[in-house]
Amino acid sequence: MNPIELRDGERIDDLQAAGYRIIQHPDRFRFGTDAVLLAHFAHAPKNARWLDLGTGTGILPLLIAAHRPFSGFEAVEVQAEAADMAARSMRLNGLNERVLVRCMDMLDAPAFYGSAAFDAIVCNPPYGKRGGGLQSEKDALSIARHEVLITLEQIVGVAERLLKNGGRFFLIQQADRLPELMSLLREKRLEPKRVRLLYPRPGRQAHLALVESVKQGGAGCVFMPPLFIHEESGEVSLETQRIYAGLEDA
Amino acid sequence: MNPIELRDGERIDDLQAAGYRIIQHPDRFRFGTDAVLLAHFAHAPKNARWLDLGTGTGILPLLIAAHRPFSGFEAVEVQAEAADMAARSMRLNGLNERVLVRCMDMLDAPAFYGSAAFDAIVCNPPYGKRGGGLQSEKDALSIARHEVLITLEQIVGVAERLLKNGGRFFLIQQADRLPELMSLLREKRLEPKRVRLLYPRPGRQAHLALVESVKQGGAGCVFMPPLFIHEESGEVSLETQRIYAGLEDA
Repeated sequence: MNPIELRDGERIDDLQAAGYRIIQHPDRFRFGTDAVLLAHFAHAPKNARWLDLGTGTGILPLLIAAHRPFSGFEAVEVQAEAADMAARSMRLNGLNERVLVRCMDMLDAPAFYGSAAFDAIVCNPPYGKRGGGLQSEKDALSIARHEVLITLEQIVGVAERLLKNGGRFFLIQQADRLPELMSLLREKRLEPKRVRLLYPRPGRQAHLALVESVKQGGAGCVFMPPLFIHEESGEVSLETQRIYAGLEDA
Repeated sequence: MNPIELRDGERIDDLQAAGYRIIQHPDRFRFGTDAVLLAHFAHAPKNARWLDLGTGTGILPLLIAAHRPFSGFEAVEVQAEAADMAARSMRLNGLNERVLVRCMDMLDAPAFYGSAAFDAIVCNPPYGKRGGGLQSEKDALSIARHEVLITLEQIVGVAERLLKNGGRFFLIQQADRLPELMSLLREKRLEPKRVRLLYPRPGRQAHLALVESVKQGGAGCVFMPPLFIHEESGEVSLETQRIYAGLEDA
């Protein structure tokens, strides 16, 4: 297959990061701000083995690979169409030997990879009320089923099994579910160590939360300064712009 | 006893709220910003029965009574000296029939009051690394023992037993313990419903968190806009000033 072969409706977008490009489908599979913020939030030592649970079109591996050294990256995606797009995007960027995309239900990942196989896991769950992950106009039923079939509790359980002790789990979730998420993480000894609340603009309540947990980590969590996506004027905030431009340190 | 009798080292401070005044001991028992913020954060229907767990010199009942209608207020305090000061402050303000101060270990409160006795419970724990609650130069050992003897888990358990279903629990805690606190609350079916993170100033990490939980409440939590105590300049922020002046709605 030609690395840049495009299927009907697909297009190639420039990520403006390390020259990388991504294959997207404007109406069906397109990444959102959530993925950019999560990629920026995640970090690990340079020899880390990474895993993306539910990679969609591969945006998280692409952005992380553009900004951070790593020793290996696995990315699983249950939807064949998205997984195929992600795999082609890796080839498009010459990353196909370093970022391995597998079409797989993330619930099967622990059996496939074995326990404690990764140093860092990222997950941008496509379900919940927020957009930013998968978007499908034709296959709404599949998306809905996905929401039902994989719960936050199951994702946390999968991450716990796949992480080494001391390994990091990076997740973005709706802010209103943060208490539930923290309970689930702590039950699995994935101690929340760093949280950043995201606000659509000053004066509003938080809509999203970035959470870093450490497997078997000690208690004590840093709540970072809030990130306002927009200014009060409605303009995209300077910090959000800097994150998009890759200028801000995590 | 004369209602305004003062003991050695004590003084009367004007709360600038409903004309109320409080007896404090500048070096030993003095309220902090935490108490003002928690009193402002707490709310309940006008016919509510309130309880303050560890009232110190009675600052929370005084501030809440100054700003909100209520049907009854109980306040327990394990340290006799502080409880006595709180009781005298209630008499000083003519509140002694509406705010009942009892010298009691809060662990004994469920047996004393019985289950489900209150609509709203507030607690500004005096232990942990943050100041703002009790301050004692002479009795540091007692304070340290207090930290050991009453855990956050025990406080949450006491609040759960004393609250009616649907009743509200308002707590301020160090931000770094928020994941632990949320786990403890949810284990006791005190569902976190509203959180406000407090930042010493913009750009810093959060140091405190105000948390409202509802007994047997449904899932879903609002993370309010952050409160910056100071501006970047170091000046007390306008919003903090307004809270002190009682001008801001909770």
